Amino acid sequence: MLTILFLFLLFSSTPFSANAAVQDFCVADPTLPEGPAGYSCKKPASVTVKDFTFSGFEKAGNTSNIIKAAVTPAFAAQFPGVNGLGISAARLDLAPGGVIPLHTHPGGSELLVVTEGCIQAGFISSANTLYYEILAEGDAMVFPQGLLHFQINVGDGNAVAIVSFSSPSPGLQITPIALFGSKNFPSSIIEKITFLDDAQVKKLKGVLGGTG
Amino acid sequence: MLTILFLFLLFSSTPFSANAAVQDFCVADPTLPEGPAGYSCKKPASVTVKDFTFSGFEKAGNTSNIIKAAVTPAFAAQFPGVNGLGISAARLDLAPGGVIPLHTHPGGSELLVVTEGCIQAGFISSANTLYYEILAEGDAMVFPQGLLHFQINVGDGNAVAIVSFSSPSPGLQITPIALFGSKNFPSSIIEKITFLDDAQVKKLKGVLGGTG
Amino acid sequence: MLTILFLFLLFSSTPFSANAAVQDFCVADPTLPEGPAGYSCKKPASVTVKDFTFSGFEKAGNTSNIIKAAVTPAFAAQFPGVNGLGISAARLDLAPGGVIPLHTHPGGSELLVVTEGCIQAGFISSANTLYYEILAEGDAMVFPQGLLHFQINVGDGNAVAIVSFSSPSPGLQITPIALFGSKNFPSSIIEKITFLDDAQVKKLKGVLGGTG
Amino acid sequence: MLTILFLFLLFSSTPFSANAAVQDFCVADPTLPEGPAGYSCKKPASVTVKDFTFSGFEKAGNTSNIIKAAVTPAFAAQFPGVNGLGISAARLDLAPGGVIPLHTHPGGSELLVVTEGCIQAGFISSANTLYYEILAEGDAMVFPQGLLHFQINVGDGNAVAIVSFSSPSPGLQITPIALFGSKNFPSSIIEKITFLDDAQVKKLKGVLGGTG
Amino acid sequence: MLTILFLFLLFSSTPFSANAAVQDFCVADPTLPEGPAGYSCKKPASVTVKDFTFSGFEKAGNTSNIIKAAVTPAFAAQFPGVNGLGISAARLDLAPGGVIPLHTHPGGSELLVVTEGCIQAGFISSANTLYYEILAEGDAMVFPQGLLHFQINVGDGNAVAIVSFSSPSPGLQITPIALFGSKNFPSSIIEKITFLDDAQVKKLKGVLGGTG
Amino acid sequence: MLTILFLFLLFSSTPFSANAAVQDFCVADPTLPEGPAGYSCKKPASVTVKDFTFSGFEKAGNTSNIIKAAVTPAFAAQFPGVNGLGISAARLDLAPGGVIPLHTHPGGSELLVVTEGCIQAGFISSANTLYYEILAEGDAMVFPQGLLHFQINVGDGNAVAIVSFSSPSPGLQITPIALFGSKNFPSSIIEKITFLDDAQVKKLKGVLGGTG
Repeated sequence: MLTILFLFLLFSSTPFSANAAVQDFCVADPTLPEGPAGYSCKKPASVTVKDFTFSGFEKAGNTSNIIKAAVTPAFAAQFPGVNGLGISAARLDLAPGGVIPLHTHPGGSELLVVTEGCIQAGFISSANTLYYEILAEGDAMVFPQGLLHFQINVGDGNAVAIVSFSSPSPGLQITPIALFGSKNFPSSIIEKITFLDDAQVKKLKGVLGGTG
Repeated sequence: MLTILFLFLLFSSTPFSANAAVQDFCVADPTLPEGPAGYSCKKPASVTVKDFTFSGFEKAGNTSNIIKAAVTPAFAAQFPGVNGLGISAARLDLAPGGVIPLHTHPGGSELLVVTEGCIQAGFISSANTLYYEILAEGDAMVFPQGLLHFQINVGDGNAVAIVSFSSPSPGLQITPIALFGSKNFPSSIIEKITFLDDAQVKKLKGVLGGTG
Repeated sequence: MLTILFLFLLFSSTPFSANAAVQDFCVADPTLPEGPAGYSCKKPASVTVKDFTFSGFEKAGNTSNIIKAAVTPAFAAQFPGVNGLGISAARLDLAPGGVIPLHTHPGGSELLVVTEGCIQAGFISSANTLYYEILAEGDAMVFPQGLLHFQINVGDGNAVAIVSFSSPSPGLQITPIALFGSKNFPSSIIEKITFLDDAQVKKLKGVLGGTG
Repeated sequence: MLTILFLFLLFSSTPFSANAAVQDFCVADPTLPEGPAGYSCKKPASVTVKDFTFSGFEKAGNTSNIIKAAVTPAFAAQFPGVNGLGISAARLDLAPGGVIPLHTHPGGSELLVVTEGCIQAGFISSANTLYYEILAEGDAMVFPQGLLHFQINVGDGNAVAIVSFSSPSPGLQITPIALFGSKNFPSSIIEKITFLDDAQVKKLKGVLGGTG
Repeated sequence: MLTILFLFLLFSSTPFSANAAVQDFCVADPTLPEGPAGYSCKKPASVTVKDFTFSGFEKAGNTSNIIKAAVTPAFAAQFPGVNGLGISAARLDLAPGGVIPLHTHPGGSELLVVTEGCIQAGFISSANTLYYEILAEGDAMVFPQGLLHFQINVGDGNAVAIVSFSSPSPGLQITPIALFGSKNFPSSIIEKITFLDDAQVKKLKGVLGGTG
Repeated sequence: MLTILFLFLLFSSTPFSANAAVQDFCVADPTLPEGPAGYSCKKPASVTVKDFTFSGFEKAGNTSNIIKAAVTPAFAAQFPGVNGLGISAARLDLAPGGVIPLHTHPGGSELLVVTEGCIQAGFISSANTLYYEILAEGDAMVFPQGLLHFQINVGDGNAVAIVSFSSPSPGLQITPIALFGSKNFPSSIIEKITFLDDAQVKKLKGVLGGTG
């Protein structure tokens, strides 16, 4: 058979043709060591279409929280098939008045598409210029890698967006949580590096659970 | 003012601080030369939030064609703000029975999220294994870079998907159009490299406009 | 001794100087986990010059098959020394009338040098333009990453080419084998995504071993 | 002459051997278009050793400002020779009590070496863990790409550090200046995305020059 | 026509669809600015198959020189089609006794395939280990990026090799020519940094044309 | 608590949230396999601030050797926190008359900052042009990846420099040690590839410990 013949010719000099084929993709196997380029790969023989599909976006995330918002990620940690492919996604849900607070993705750029409702989104450049816009259903916006950005539901109903990232593990660092939600972060240091008043810092630590 | 002071300190040794700031992003300027890494950058002073937003996804693409489908791209050529950021997107519309034929994206991986209807999608690996699945609204699937894949509307109504790519210019090569829609592509060569019959090749050239 | 002194100074603060030195290269060890960047590295102490040499190109591949052609790869799976180095190679043999059918390399660009005979080679761009040429001994041609291309022996005798790739594991997806040689690929889907007739699809599945 | 001979052989088939040689480096020419990979290159013939040297680190930066600190960058905009080489540097000066406020470098990681005095430095991970340490002269610390970090002079005298970056244009986004020093950034939005009180926001805008 | 229809749909939102298509490749246009990623791209409309083919390997290079060897490069400067594709090639000719002296390629790894004769080739690792082998016709060897290596014709007749590189512009720095063939390189410095005797340095400068 | 809530939302679909967070950094664990992109990562739970700090630069290296110089590296092998971050550093100490001999870094570019004394530094381009300069305290110079370069103390006292690299494992290949300090490197080959006299080669092998 030509197929067999080809594969034979192609891999006849190696005992691990299956490994060679895995180079098409590298489905994450979290039980193996992780490296700078991502997770180690599952053996191709055990890869199935389920590794390349993700079903977490069907239903809204739980927005019963103080930001009235939810992030449902499909990063390599949740969606093994994207490991090594330079892409991932997430679903954003914002109830009326909901906010995704100021944050950055250390590892990648973000492209947001509004699929329901109305979102005010923006980012700040290194030159301290604010770029922001009100986005309706079907509008898209891109947030360059590593820059501070935010999303706010400015409509009357729920807002939903599908966001994608230029990395399988873009990371998510929410500025106020990093400052006021971390453990053992002395308020005196927070105040020095942010110019905030002591009362303000302590108030927000109370809300967000920070200590130190 | 501290802001001014900082920017002064930061760029005091250069006459072009604005250029330095552009390093946050590189909005495509198609009037300047293009390079292997993408389009040249617009001068930061002329960049506005409009460069980072895209409005082409609001309405369905025109599916009144033989594949009953439409692709609306937001690549660097249509969405200048994604230039250099390693990401882009597109909207897929498939009328009942619509099909995105067998194709590849030479420059990147694709992540698809179904936002309406029901799509059967799949890809073929280098090891000649087919990975395919029927995706409902909210389901996602990833297609590794450069591999043959397809999408078919298998529902009763319209199907819509938001797809993103790991490149600002992933490219799109539709196999049957490359074969049967190209100009001056001798049928004798097509037959040799595909094993297809002469009658089949000539029939499809007639449909898809190929010559030679 | 200065040598010793240098190495001592260079690695005195680490217990694993040998590991540090491996950063020059990363010879594939297929018994260890594989990651998105390639195979894990052999311990430097067990690396020999044999890991950096490959002897599979001396003799012609077996062209006694229906395409009258053979591909002998020296990818990371066959040539461990290229792992992580962004390069690999292969030998192509085409008997008179031999053909390397329509194919892509998902992971890299290809540079072909004819070392014997006369080969007609070409690729198709995303803009559906065919670029093809007849190459004599000593002629070279480059095929950009991920684009459909082919090679045909148009001479009277055997043709041989040395090809190199911009990846240690470029992959090889032969379009007609992906379509007609895969297992469990329903003909109804193949027909929808290629516009081919049912009879044509079934005929080629019979030749190439596809099922479903 | 062998030299001439070699260069002749090496570039005999091109009319622009000088351009070929520039591939060793790409000294920034800010008068030409900029692309995603950096500035365009000066013509090799006009490159001199001055392009590869930088003299801005001899003297302390001016710390007569409210943060009692100064940053003297040697990025591609100030040091053309680093363009395209994946590295750049800066000198930090902190008077007693001086602070480099909370900031990120969107484009690269930072490696700091204290050359004088005593600096308390730290960063916060995406998992909201604070990693911080007091660094004496000769101590080094690395800050992973895109993560929030800071430096504080905790000694009695001046503190100086040489920092390097994994990018020729790493960028610098100082969180409080981005928030309170930007033009036309509505306080109502700042409050929503940071949880800060209105009075706090307006107070810091007054100090840092923000409007809107 | 479907082809037209597709291209229309694909690029209907941009006035420069031709530019978008160039993303498949970026044929070097040396008359435009060069950047860190390579040469600027020719306009797709003026690209022809000639840009993707190279004919300089048909005939042997001129080995009538003191090293009895010749290098015929097909780098981006000589072969515009490889620009941006991460690959290039060269032909090596070595007359009996011919030598490619000690050299490095700053920008890429090399893969050598002997097509005629018998070549002794080797490289030295950072750990000061020599890896060398005698290669017969059809043998291949890889030289990791940036490491010192060499090739010697140890057969009775001519030797020829096709070499490929993991960069379109790998560069070539021949150590003895860099030392003894450069202009204005003071012998006193050469002696300090190489431990060579003054007489040896001056003798070789005489042979290789160095001054200073 | 919002923090907990966020982390829960963020990682609720995965059993290994800690692994996901490691994507901020990948601290080297030399006990696990190494890959082309670097060392495997320590489990985040066991990472401490000590992994991100390095204390080897406080004191001068030992310059009691024939080059009167010392290199103290902080590469990934010595400084685990830089693994995967594209940066590393080293301290250079040169006693009066001290020299860092001709060398290359196969894996990265170098940026040198003089912190004490006076250093003459230079590199040679592929076009055989020498770029060199005398650097005083506070002066910086960049050496493009893979090119031959050197540093000489031309002052009356000690000289010290902090150097950084665009790679966590740039490598260091000292040309005279590679030639005259390697084991089993036949003098006859060294002479052929360098044009050096037999006496000179044997003399330096005696000094630098080479054999063969």
